Amino acid sequence: MDFSKGHGTQNDFVVLPDLDVRIDLEPARVSAVCDRQRGLGADGILRVARAGALADAGVLGALPDGVAAEDWFMDYRNSDGSIAEMCGNGVRVFAHYLKASGLESKDEFVVGSRAGARPVVVHGSDATHGDVTVAMGPIKDLGTSSATIDGRVFAGVGIDVGNPHLACVDEHVTAEVLSALDLSVSPGFDPGFFPHGVNIEIVTPIHDGGVHMRVHERGVGETRSCGTGTVAAAAAALRYDGRDEGSVLVRVLGGEVQVTVEGGKGSLRGPSVLVANGTISDAWWQSLV
Amino acid sequence: MDFSKGHGTQNDFVVLPDLDVRIDLEPARVSAVCDRQRGLGADGILRVARAGALADAGVLGALPDGVAAEDWFMDYRNSDGSIAEMCGNGVRVFAHYLKASGLESKDEFVVGSRAGARPVVVHGSDATHGDVTVAMGPIKDLGTSSATIDGRVFAGVGIDVGNPHLACVDEHVTAEVLSALDLSVSPGFDPGFFPHGVNIEIVTPIHDGGVHMRVHERGVGETRSCGTGTVAAAAAALRYDGRDEGSVLVRVLGGEVQVTVEGGKGSLRGPSVLVANGTISDAWWQSLV
Repeated sequence: MDFSKGHGTQNDFVVLPDLDVRIDLEPARVSAVCDRQRGLGADGILRVARAGALADAGVLGALPDGVAAEDWFMDYRNSDGSIAEMCGNGVRVFAHYLKASGLESKDEFVVGSRAGARPVVVHGSDATHGDVTVAMGPIKDLGTSSATIDGRVFAGVGIDVGNPHLACVDEHVTAEVLSALDLSVSPGFDPGFFPHGVNIEIVTPIHDGGVHMRVHERGVGETRSCGTGTVAAAAAALRYDGRDEGSVLVRVLGGEVQVTVEGGKGSLRGPSVLVANGTISDAWWQSLV
Repeated sequence: MDFSKGHGTQNDFVVLPDLDVRIDLEPARVSAVCDRQRGLGADGILRVARAGALADAGVLGALPDGVAAEDWFMDYRNSDGSIAEMCGNGVRVFAHYLKASGLESKDEFVVGSRAGARPVVVHGSDATHGDVTVAMGPIKDLGTSSATIDGRVFAGVGIDVGNPHLACVDEHVTAEVLSALDLSVSPGFDPGFFPHGVNIEIVTPIHDGGVHMRVHERGVGETRSCGTGTVAAAAAALRYDGRDEGSVLVRVLGGEVQVTVEGGKGSLRGPSVLVANGTISDAWWQSLV
């Protein structure tokens, strides 16, 4: 079973090409592959196939909005084996992999996800490095709320980018204040406002076109990067600046991405790195269930 | 650059075959490869070469005690890029890799380490699974001391197995008590007794020939397994039982190993799993320094 290991701003993935949809991605197998000691280790698995092939194999029901049978489809699995709709960093690595492997020759194409079609532009790529823009879809304003971190209250804006975010832009938050924050304890938030939990971003105001942010992902804890979180952070920082549209360089622990907000929609441009590729042992894979 | 990824009771390694000693294992590269998001992810790197080739390349100074130029040598690097003398779980994976790759045809041979020669017996191996005994060398009794964990004091025995351990066997420690212990905070110990820090094992008394243990490794925190720690735990549990010699099944979070103490020396028998193999991107490797 072939694999590649790569990351987008240090959100890391095992890529499994499976054009004929023969791999049985049972949760026990996904979590073993993603286990950082027992397996290869990753935040998630990206299975590579055409949307139609996944639907024919019963992995997908009806094709999601705007996704055609002949489109590539990112079948994303979280490290616990569960299914996730979308992952902005994952789509960059997925698109880069398609180009690097020769499976796709065009620079502009659609990557299907369970949250709908995600058109991508691959600005540059080789076997190792990629530079990809992903259209991230509509940004919905959910109104104001707040988060409590480290005994301190941060005012924020609820933003839906396919998943819920609370992006807190605060004039007192500098890069130094941000790096001193203790995010090891889960932030407090209003469970009435966010009944299914929320991803929380703490963000500096825009300075010279850029912001710094840290992110706490629901059910995970602090991560080095969150693709939808960078879009929510940029939208909130622009709004804090009195703007509806614009482009913001968002610096996360794992690197930096460029987010553009225009016409109520976001796009995310950033790097992808494919570190290694190889073969997963069949005997090991068979031993997992 | 070829690699294999494997683990011994969930202590995991990137194996780098490098018979001509051409790979420059600068700390920045080692830590990038071992970084779990940016790289492949591992507790350490095992470079595979003959002792003589490593000495000729200047990686080793004088050959360690009992190690001949034609012996295999495990050039072990910690995930922070520093050098470690020995790793009991690493030697099993190293020996298994030699057999699985066809580099070694014998079942009994010597693996050199910076702590000296470590004779191994490969009882069984295929491309994925191995079963290996490692001669772990002398066990030195350092006298009694104590550790404080979770506000509770545990009496223990200082034991040197090439590195210092404090193995605490306690009649009140059952498997249930053990699993409830909070090892997220570093245990307290006597810095006069252990000036260079200490690895701490909390161990149940021997029951039906076996013990349960958890381990806190100095400079790392709790780990799922520690090879020298299982030897120290078995020696302490035998002593608690009034015995100098014997064989103990040691259950750690990452699995189980069989430790035998005889004539003041320990041996460790346990599993090795090679999960995947492949190639690390040259362009990525070159970008790391």
